[in-house]
Amino acid sequence: MASHPVVEFTSESSWAMVEDKFSPFAKETLAKLVTFMKDDILPAVRLAHSQVPEDSVKRWKTVIPIVAELKVKARKLGLWNLFLSKAHYPKHGVPLSNLEYAVMAEVLGRGGPIASEAVNCSAPDTGNMEVLARYGSPEQQEKWLLPLLNGQTRSAFAMTERFVASSDATNIRTSIRQEGNEIVINGHKWWISGAGDPRCALHLVLGKSDPNNSDRYQQQSIVIVPVTTPGVKVIRPMKVFGYDDAPEGHCEIIYENVRVPLSNLVLGWGKGFEIIQGRLGPGRIHHCMRSIGAAAQALDLMIQRVTDPSRKTFGKYLYEHGTVIADIAKSRAEIESARLLVLSAALQIDKFQAKGAMKEIGIAKFVVPSMALQVVDRAIQSFGAEGISQDQELAGTWAGLRTLRLADGPDAVHIQQIGQRELKRAPALAKRTVEIKQKEKLLLERYGAKSPL
Amino acid sequence: MASHPVVEFTSESSWAMVEDKFSPFAKETLAKLVTFMKDDILPAVRLAHSQVPEDSVKRWKTVIPIVAELKVKARKLGLWNLFLSKAHYPKHGVPLSNLEYAVMAEVLGRGGPIASEAVNCSAPDTGNMEVLARYGSPEQQEKWLLPLLNGQTRSAFAMTERFVASSDATNIRTSIRQEGNEIVINGHKWWISGAGDPRCALHLVLGKSDPNNSDRYQQQSIVIVPVTTPGVKVIRPMKVFGYDDAPEGHCEIIYENVRVPLSNLVLGWGKGFEIIQGRLGPGRIHHCMRSIGAAAQALDLMIQRVTDPSRKTFGKYLYEHGTVIADIAKSRAEIESARLLVLSAALQIDKFQAKGAMKEIGIAKFVVPSMALQVVDRAIQSFGAEGISQDQELAGTWAGLRTLRLADGPDAVHIQQIGQRELKRAPALAKRTVEIKQKEKLLLERYGAKSPL
Amino acid sequence: MASHPVVEFTSESSWAMVEDKFSPFAKETLAKLVTFMKDDILPAVRLAHSQVPEDSVKRWKTVIPIVAELKVKARKLGLWNLFLSKAHYPKHGVPLSNLEYAVMAEVLGRGGPIASEAVNCSAPDTGNMEVLARYGSPEQQEKWLLPLLNGQTRSAFAMTERFVASSDATNIRTSIRQEGNEIVINGHKWWISGAGDPRCALHLVLGKSDPNNSDRYQQQSIVIVPVTTPGVKVIRPMKVFGYDDAPEGHCEIIYENVRVPLSNLVLGWGKGFEIIQGRLGPGRIHHCMRSIGAAAQALDLMIQRVTDPSRKTFGKYLYEHGTVIADIAKSRAEIESARLLVLSAALQIDKFQAKGAMKEIGIAKFVVPSMALQVVDRAIQSFGAEGISQDQELAGTWAGLRTLRLADGPDAVHIQQIGQRELKRAPALAKRTVEIKQKEKLLLERYGAKSPL
Amino acid sequence: MASHPVVEFTSESSWAMVEDKFSPFAKETLAKLVTFMKDDILPAVRLAHSQVPEDSVKRWKTVIPIVAELKVKARKLGLWNLFLSKAHYPKHGVPLSNLEYAVMAEVLGRGGPIASEAVNCSAPDTGNMEVLARYGSPEQQEKWLLPLLNGQTRSAFAMTERFVASSDATNIRTSIRQEGNEIVINGHKWWISGAGDPRCALHLVLGKSDPNNSDRYQQQSIVIVPVTTPGVKVIRPMKVFGYDDAPEGHCEIIYENVRVPLSNLVLGWGKGFEIIQGRLGPGRIHHCMRSIGAAAQALDLMIQRVTDPSRKTFGKYLYEHGTVIADIAKSRAEIESARLLVLSAALQIDKFQAKGAMKEIGIAKFVVPSMALQVVDRAIQSFGAEGISQDQELAGTWAGLRTLRLADGPDAVHIQQIGQRELKRAPALAKRTVEIKQKEKLLLERYGAKSPL
Repeated sequence: MASHPVVEFTSESSWAMVEDKFSPFAKETLAKLVTFMKDDILPAVRLAHSQVPEDSVKRWKTVIPIVAELKVKARKLGLWNLFLSKAHYPKHGVPLSNLEYAVMAEVLGRGGPIASEAVNCSAPDTGNMEVLARYGSPEQQEKWLLPLLNGQTRSAFAMTERFVASSDATNIRTSIRQEGNEIVINGHKWWISGAGDPRCALHLVLGKSDPNNSDRYQQQSIVIVPVTTPGVKVIRPMKVFGYDDAPEGHCEIIYENVRVPLSNLVLGWGKGFEIIQGRLGPGRIHHCMRSIGAAAQALDLMIQRVTDPSRKTFGKYLYEHGTVIADIAKSRAEIESARLLVLSAALQIDKFQAKGAMKEIGIAKFVVPSMALQVVDRAIQSFGAEGISQDQELAGTWAGLRTLRLADGPDAVHIQQIGQRELKRAPALAKRTVEIKQKEKLLLERYGAKSPL
Repeated sequence: MASHPVVEFTSESSWAMVEDKFSPFAKETLAKLVTFMKDDILPAVRLAHSQVPEDSVKRWKTVIPIVAELKVKARKLGLWNLFLSKAHYPKHGVPLSNLEYAVMAEVLGRGGPIASEAVNCSAPDTGNMEVLARYGSPEQQEKWLLPLLNGQTRSAFAMTERFVASSDATNIRTSIRQEGNEIVINGHKWWISGAGDPRCALHLVLGKSDPNNSDRYQQQSIVIVPVTTPGVKVIRPMKVFGYDDAPEGHCEIIYENVRVPLSNLVLGWGKGFEIIQGRLGPGRIHHCMRSIGAAAQALDLMIQRVTDPSRKTFGKYLYEHGTVIADIAKSRAEIESARLLVLSAALQIDKFQAKGAMKEIGIAKFVVPSMALQVVDRAIQSFGAEGISQDQELAGTWAGLRTLRLADGPDAVHIQQIGQRELKRAPALAKRTVEIKQKEKLLLERYGAKSPL
Repeated sequence: MASHPVVEFTSESSWAMVEDKFSPFAKETLAKLVTFMKDDILPAVRLAHSQVPEDSVKRWKTVIPIVAELKVKARKLGLWNLFLSKAHYPKHGVPLSNLEYAVMAEVLGRGGPIASEAVNCSAPDTGNMEVLARYGSPEQQEKWLLPLLNGQTRSAFAMTERFVASSDATNIRTSIRQEGNEIVINGHKWWISGAGDPRCALHLVLGKSDPNNSDRYQQQSIVIVPVTTPGVKVIRPMKVFGYDDAPEGHCEIIYENVRVPLSNLVLGWGKGFEIIQGRLGPGRIHHCMRSIGAAAQALDLMIQRVTDPSRKTFGKYLYEHGTVIADIAKSRAEIESARLLVLSAALQIDKFQAKGAMKEIGIAKFVVPSMALQVVDRAIQSFGAEGISQDQELAGTWAGLRTLRLADGPDAVHIQQIGQRELKRAPALAKRTVEIKQKEKLLLERYGAKSPL
Repeated sequence: MASHPVVEFTSESSWAMVEDKFSPFAKETLAKLVTFMKDDILPAVRLAHSQVPEDSVKRWKTVIPIVAELKVKARKLGLWNLFLSKAHYPKHGVPLSNLEYAVMAEVLGRGGPIASEAVNCSAPDTGNMEVLARYGSPEQQEKWLLPLLNGQTRSAFAMTERFVASSDATNIRTSIRQEGNEIVINGHKWWISGAGDPRCALHLVLGKSDPNNSDRYQQQSIVIVPVTTPGVKVIRPMKVFGYDDAPEGHCEIIYENVRVPLSNLVLGWGKGFEIIQGRLGPGRIHHCMRSIGAAAQALDLMIQRVTDPSRKTFGKYLYEHGTVIADIAKSRAEIESARLLVLSAALQIDKFQAKGAMKEIGIAKFVVPSMALQVVDRAIQSFGAEGISQDQELAGTWAGLRTLRLADGPDAVHIQQIGQRELKRAPALAKRTVEIKQKEKLLLERYGAKSPL
């Protein structure tokens, strides 16, 4: 069977399911991306790591040279801002559907964070650009969006708060209030990704502007805070299983009497919840597809390791021992089914917006990271201690994936929502059952059979 | 979102993935099938069970009246022999692809064995009809295939042998030898599904005709054995977790000097292995899709049970207790992902024949039955003791699904094959890695970075 | 290392953990039991099965001859009523602790239901004898307990009700009321084990005697109902998967204006709940230990199957394929840890009564049946289709074990109770944490360290 | 029930299983240890972490002051070298059995690495002290063992090699050869725990002294290498996920023409394999018990988190959401059963030496770390992002536990050995089966029953 270049990065059968839904432009872009990954990004991963200094101060002042170089090349190739759908963002967007981008996100997922950054598709910038493109005023777009779209600046989204369960937005304590022509912000955030980057230009800060509003979804607002504003204090990087993820990092930040002009309010007072809702759906799918790429990459590494003659023990290849072959088979099956789930969710978003794809997004959100963690964990095991060390990407990949079970709603929240959604089918099911039971009764009577119940 | 009738039986998102691959004929047929299921088959399930006598002799002499009635109606509606693809069997087939039939098989899976029989799509007849349609002589087709296609007779496929590990075909002991114009068969088989049915007209018997052939795949032949031939001894029904599955059953059979005319040889001497290979691929997918229908049906039952006010304990609905909602969410996620796997396998078969879809078929074969068993088991648990009793379909469904982890190759065989297939990717992966490492080295040198390895 | 005969039936290390807690009498009894199992019970299992007629009427009128024979021999050997602890039932009991009997129950678990019956330790008779021995009047003991202790009669415990969630005792609908010197009983029960046996002499019926009592645990009473009383209608046997478990069975029963003398009330009005509470604790542990015996037996069968030269495929033993060795290792580990859990629970009962061992009993109750099901399922898989058939004990064992996840409180109830019990440790944990934090603070101050929080 | 102080750190029922196997000395020591943990070690954990500098050079030159202080106090209390059993090491040992120490190791496991170090029971020193105490010459003991026993120095065990699968000892490449009165060592090791510590005085280096010996277990020798010897090059610390575990670390080391006197050979030429075999058994159990303590500590943290009112979301405690209570119940059950497994293994070691406890050690080795990882992972999930950060011990604990699935033989090796060991029971099982079948046959004949097979 003739093989499309993408198949090396995904699979024949997944590709068959979606190929006819790809535009010629999308196919061409995908082919370019696949080539760029092989020729440029994957060979640069190790160099990129080595270009982040060990020194605990300098590492936070670094713009990784090879990534900057990749960005120039990517943009020339037209591999740029692929996440921003022209359908939803006509002015700045790229003519790719969510489904089309989803396949590309998997490809990018094999290259870790630098791959996404190379094509200007890094979180949290992607979500922030979408917010500014959809809800930003022309002035906001001019000042903050364009440099982001150009890859010149980076950004952060300041939502999560320390000391409170901020996954329930009514628990948010950061205060946002108007004083004359200014907005004053006070709050204590943490896990603010990207805030460590020297290029980070702005924080989108979520806080309570109307804490007593009886509609709990009207209490929040979002404000653009330039990082240079007095009172913005980046306290420390949070670590993820020992990793600080410099230079971007996930920072603890105190906003102390931070004052910005009124024009920095995004969309309007009380629109904070609406904005974060719109921001999350597709982003969750992007994370999922990158996770699948990461899992696929880990499986490829595992296959190479267990077939490596220099790793033989007791005269046998690693794959001849224990449950290695079964582990590989299960990993393959899990990757294939997870990918189909996410592609299916992406298609639903294309058809019905994120709101109409809540079921599919929710399922992917709780299934995919756990799946990927398991696949990576098996790969780690095949590498022995090397697998958990700095000499392989696996441990870092694992730690990054582990955060996804907590971020954007922990697993339990999504599981609960999907379960509740299923329960809502009960009345329709009961109605169908009544209809069937009525016909069943007639049938039983017609044949003179004793109803068993 | 406007909903297609099929969505009630599958899901919005799965349907979206395949809808554009459905012909108008297939869509129309599917709509008819969905209606037939709701209006006729599902209301008949209980009656059908009650029409099989308890008496241990009479139950094996029964043609279930309501099923006979359903067959008449189904045929009138054009819901008949849907499994037999016109693309592969132009003379007798129906213009449905494997993908199209797969969706229908899921719908049928909600109605248990009688649903498949009602539309003349029951195993093992389906596989046997395919064998006769593809490999049978005109005379064999006239005599044996047509009555099967008409739903007048039934059939069995006699492969599995007692006392030997017959999943390895070289272990087969049944002897098939020519004596003049006759073929003489001696052997001891068991688990021969359908052989208990009073309408069963023929057995396709696999045996060794050339046990010393150096090519182990040329040793076997298949012969048509009319059930009335002297020497055909149906010994007893094998039970599956206490179920005898009368009237079809899974029988132990001894062939003792059974003599049939030479013209009963199928395809030719030594062609047995080729035939069973061709027979298995699509059939495995059919089982998988029916399993998904069974799982989906079980989940629907569970949802109704846990929302039933009469089942409250300690003042709370069942769904308010313990992990019920999470169990439902996981079941939903597992059903969705399993369905996509099987649809993807069906599409591969349509594109590349079963041989080109071995990976996808193999994955579905070991993933889907275990998934369905788990979903049904959770549903059972929600029903309490009633769930394992004769008053619900769940226990019977579970037992039927459990056989699938053993039939047509146990899980371990498929897991092993998928794992081995992945290992074959090792050389290509190694080659790619070498290329990437070379570029990596150049990059590291260009930047004067120390290679970390 | 010198080996005690019991080690063949349990394990060296489990035995080492409990040996010094065994009395000389218990050791001697255990040794006799082990011998009796090997020489008499295990060789009789197949015969016993063959002595239950296939005929759907006669099978319910059967007293299995070989079991009757085994009972005579067992009693002579002093292997009789081993479950009835002399410590709690001085008059009729045997001088064995729960821990000592637990090890014997594991041994019995390898022989299925006939093993327990042979030594007069079958559920539900065991629990019923305990009830009568502890709560029965001298007359009740004379009339109903002695024949049970002698193995002449059998009994049933009628608690579970059809149509209601009777695991919540306040949902019980059966009415028990006094009329003059009589008690009148009306109710609809099902899953009443043992009620099908021709020797069944009495039912202990739980019903509501005071449904409006504000104390919900005072509403129920228990009455002895002779099976011959007019109005006792045994409707049908419930099936477990496809098994009817004749002759004992699990029956649906209607009590229609059943009248018994007032002297048949057990313990007193409103004492029903107290009685069922006292009845359950040790019984659950007995089920668990028999389950462990069943699992150990299944693993032994699996080991024999996978090392059987006649089962080789493709030139290799079954154990050389796939994950068989790992499956065996996991099964062994699971059996060992489950056994220790149950032995530990039995020891707690000996020390603190069932009430003081609720945690250990609850853990065993939800851990052990699932563990045993998994081990048996793996064994089934190693036997191929034979494993699910009537030719091996495995499928029947599996079905019996599956009921334990539903009986005496489904898994979810026990999991929830254990979880809640853990939550009650929160205040003590919080107190300890406060103390530690205070000391931590002093230490940090002393060293001039900045508290990280 | 009156509670022993230890019960707060283990459980009532585990304690009941072993209490009567504890000597008065062991009980007293355990009580002291429990008090010391609460009053001194646990309050010191955070301070200890803060006393390791962030600076990437200084952190490797640190002796943590509070740990030094704890050591002084522990020694005064007699809580010192508890691992070294007097039974096996009469000269330097403490009169504690493996079982007794196992319970103490669980207690220590709640305090992380500093707890073990405080009482001079840290790996790899424990194993190294055992080696020197058992196999060292009087001079070696004087020079190297005594300072270790006094807690003045630390040590490393250099076995694992880079670039080879050194879990198969025949793959070892490090060369150890005699030149005159000297031994010359050349090799490349990594993952050498403790080698980063500024107090590390010696490496026990395993290498091949006789690579062509036909007995593969006679090829290796072990040599004492003082860290100050020229040619000992500690290259870099290996990281575990993102942790460097300074100051001890797990280092990569090159030995380049390292020369030591002949008297530094341990035990004799070719005795390397014998030494590592003796070293491993009890050590594996210690790791397991510490893991159980770590898991128990994580569960306690989880319980406090989910009952914390400040963590309520949507008006409910965390424990009221989703599957939290079930997760806690399962964690409790898993901890209890794992602990019993390890205690049982420790008892076997006491009775039959490590060699006679291979089964129990092997089971514990592959069961316990996975169990603990799962429990800690659930606790992490309950803490949200904080759980994976530097503000809780959980992520670090998880990473440490993850190494145990790779160290001292990866899971797969132990699973395989346990499975193989079970297979060796096949002949005895077959013999028993034959005996039972013979009796079965006689019985069937006596009753005139047809053998079903």
